[in-house]
Amino acid sequence: MNIRRATQEDYDAVWSLTKPVIREGRTYPLPQDLDKDGALAYWFALDKDVFIAEQGKVPVGVYYIRPNNAGPGNHVCNCGYVTNAEFRGQGIAAQLCEHSLKQARHMGYRAMQYNLVVSTNKPAVHLWTKMGFEIVGRLPMAFQDPVEGDVEAYVMFQKL
Amino acid sequence: MNIRRATQEDYDAVWSLTKPVIREGRTYPLPQDLDKDGALAYWFALDKDVFIAEQGKVPVGVYYIRPNNAGPGNHVCNCGYVTNAEFRGQGIAAQLCEHSLKQARHMGYRAMQYNLVVSTNKPAVHLWTKMGFEIVGRLPMAFQDPVEGDVEAYVMFQKL
Repeated sequence: MNIRRATQEDYDAVWSLTKPVIREGRTYPLPQDLDKDGALAYWFALDKDVFIAEQGKVPVGVYYIRPNNAGPGNHVCNCGYVTNAEFRGQGIAAQLCEHSLKQARHMGYRAMQYNLVVSTNKPAVHLWTKMGFEIVGRLPMAFQDPVEGDVEAYVMFQKL
Repeated sequence: MNIRRATQEDYDAVWSLTKPVIREGRTYPLPQDLDKDGALAYWFALDKDVFIAEQGKVPVGVYYIRPNNAGPGNHVCNCGYVTNAEFRGQGIAAQLCEHSLKQARHMGYRAMQYNLVVSTNKPAVHLWTKMGFEIVGRLPMAFQDPVEGDVEAYVMFQKL
């Protein structure tokens, strides 16, 4: 698997990776009906760097990294990850996370924070914990899950 | 004290209110050297509604309200408040907060979340607690205070 910086030429790939996750509506705080332009505006926002993972020429994952806040909060970064559903269970998310942690250190960040990990997304909570993150916050009813209704979300944090 | 929706005609007032807080750099995650255009871009961002408080014609406080997230997170709002330093200790922040809680219910929000309350800002932590907020998250070293260095910040939350 190769992970490299994504460019405008990867827009179609990023949309194909993220569309199913957006439509499912169970992990990202994005409208379920968000269209391609909206999704790309989110992923390629000015404050984000985007990295894409490929096996051969097949896109298998994508993540972004950005400062979680400006000024006195700009030493903490935030990331979001999406794995190609057809390649789940192959450790791709773990590799994306590991790459992002290295990238974050390289960029001079001193911590990484996830602002909204949906509590029902147990594989994610398990993986982030394994990757060194701690649950430092519990947001009651902060996510409207299309299946379970209002559910708790976690803030997860790791010093670098 | 009158609290009303702010417009473009209040840009100078909002800058005069927020500039000292930005320059002080101890409460908002904004660059200490942020200029007027940058501050107004932050305060009047498209996702924000801004309210200004006046005593007679003197601006004494300002706050914004916005959805803290999109889609499945859009039922939780986020607010930020600034009080005119010359009018501190007169309960203005409490009145701004109370107004924002009413406004949030009016807009259909079901919770309010503060994402980064600096732990050294004890008057704020005390006031938000009094106004019904709970500390639901503790972010280690999440704020670079110009006086004390890295300090903890809190996530505070209240159901509406």
